[in-house]
Amino acid sequence: MDLNSYISGFSDGEGCFCVSFNFRNKLNTGLEVRPSFSISQHQNNLNLLKLIRKQFNCGSIRYSKRDSSYKFEVREISQLNGKIIPHFIRYPLMGIKLNDFRKFKQICLMMKSNLHRNLSGLQTIINLAYDMNHGKRKYSKDVLLKRIAR
Amino acid sequence: MDLNSYISGFSDGEGCFCVSFNFRNKLNTGLEVRPSFSISQHQNNLNLLKLIRKQFNCGSIRYSKRDSSYKFEVREISQLNGKIIPHFIRYPLMGIKLNDFRKFKQICLMMKSNLHRNLSGLQTIINLAYDMNHGKRKYSKDVLLKRIAR
Repeated sequence: MDLNSYISGFSDGEGCFCVSFNFRNKLNTGLEVRPSFSISQHQNNLNLLKLIRKQFNCGSIRYSKRDSSYKFEVREISQLNGKIIPHFIRYPLMGIKLNDFRKFKQICLMMKSNLHRNLSGLQTIINLAYDMNHGKRKYSKDVLLKRIAR
Repeated sequence: MDLNSYISGFSDGEGCFCVSFNFRNKLNTGLEVRPSFSISQHQNNLNLLKLIRKQFNCGSIRYSKRDSSYKFEVREISQLNGKIIPHFIRYPLMGIKLNDFRKFKQICLMMKSNLHRNLSGLQTIINLAYDMNHGKRKYSKDVLLKRIAR
């Protein structure tokens, strides 16, 4: 049994590579980029989340009242680039979520090079993020692209 | 990367160990026991189901109109005892679904010894099955226990 491969399999079903955006007037671009890797589970599977957090050696586990679940989440870009992404390169996803991961990886690498701080980099990031499979979005892509083009 | 460990991780999130029951007048007990291991996925993840089927070297993949999904399923008791259960003993589930698996394993082993063909064995199986975490049931436990006690 290999725990790292197991975690990739579990993440392929239950994990989420997500990039969200927030308006921030203090930033030059007016837009904050927030990538995160997360796994949400019912309370009865909290021990598994703790095991996964321990194995990744980063991230936090929080309770979400909204859907009565626990969420393991990694948000720090250094941890995403230093721990999460290398894990999923070494122990690859084998399902459709691999597409999300590839875009996620590209976005996190761009952020490492501070490309999210200029207009064209940010446009690329928005396009990649809105090409990922995620349901509800606070803002439409057009709203974001217009905002940074001001 | 170890594919077997990955499959256990994926199954821990997406797999289902299920034991259902059907009335069968031709059987001495009047009740058919149907254990199955299955994984359902949206069409966009069909290739992963094919990979898993190939690795287990048993089971079938069918399209379900009801929920527009594909289901990999193993029903034959010999395959469950010979391939599925040994896999999950060697590459163990690490989440809450392990509890389901333990009961599932016990039921399949009992069936191998034909214990589902006598009243007390069947009662034990019904109790174990209704102790597993599965949503909707066609019949309540009481209906089944009364049926076989006729």
